[in-house]
Amino acid sequence: MPDKHLDDLFHDTLKDIYYAERQILKALPKMARNAHSDKLRKAFEKHREQTETHVERLQQVFEIMGKAARGKTCPAIDGIIEEGEEIISSFKDAPALDAGLIASAQAVEHYEIARYGTLRQWAIQLGLKDAAALLEQTLKEEETTDVLLSDLAENGANQEAAKAA
Amino acid sequence: MPDKHLDDLFHDTLKDIYYAERQILKALPKMARNAHSDKLRKAFEKHREQTETHVERLQQVFEIMGKAARGKTCPAIDGIIEEGEEIISSFKDAPALDAGLIASAQAVEHYEIARYGTLRQWAIQLGLKDAAALLEQTLKEEETTDVLLSDLAENGANQEAAKAA
Repeated sequence: MPDKHLDDLFHDTLKDIYYAERQILKALPKMARNAHSDKLRKAFEKHREQTETHVERLQQVFEIMGKAARGKTCPAIDGIIEEGEEIISSFKDAPALDAGLIASAQAVEHYEIARYGTLRQWAIQLGLKDAAALLEQTLKEEETTDVLLSDLAENGANQEAAKAA
Repeated sequence: MPDKHLDDLFHDTLKDIYYAERQILKALPKMARNAHSDKLRKAFEKHREQTETHVERLQQVFEIMGKAARGKTCPAIDGIIEEGEEIISSFKDAPALDAGLIASAQAVEHYEIARYGTLRQWAIQLGLKDAAALLEQTLKEEETTDVLLSDLAENGANQEAAKAA
């Protein structure tokens, strides 16, 4: 397959993040349900709504490319979500649970930041301006969510987790 | 296990990133061998050397905690590396390979940025100043590597990938 070019790579990676976003959509309600603090639960609920928009934007990007919106299994996000599930089962009802949930969510955000950053640059290179703008919008929202999660960790969840029993 | 606190979470996550760094150490030579451009090959080789230092710093953090340096399987990094291997086999000898390798490496960097960012904050919260300083040093190097990879993509690899056959 030595004639594979950037458009093939772009399409492949788009399918990867499309699958990932839909797995995240399924994982977030469980994370929200398990959060101890109201603030964190609400942050997960809000991010779930944003994630629906991210899925829709990806569908628009597929449309711009004239391709069907279809995902492909992404072992990276499966692994990241699996680690989040482990945190929930190991730290259920423990003071450190929220700090662990935030760490898991930030691993998810950083995977998305990497993928959307790459896809935006590839869209620019391919001259797909509208696609680049859609990917940029989601990238900014993922970055904002990451900062918000750091704030929830550093101003509440970490202190709670460190408290003596 | 409702009495699990931040030190347990810190130790768990340290084992996770310790395993991850050692998997990255194994994956980098293959990425370097497959890179088309000399610049990218050298960047992977340099990062392999840095990764050895990151492993040593983690061993120092384990020592500070009075724990044995031991990893635990991290499905997240296994998934991220698996996707990198898929890129190598799907895009071998194709013009888009370097762009794909860079994207895979940035997914690795972002996983590490998430984990080291979290671990540094937890070390601060736990009053482990020396550990926090070691984690901070590695965090900064991962962030610098991510910026360097973006530069290699935007000033060479993406254009090469987009060239008509």
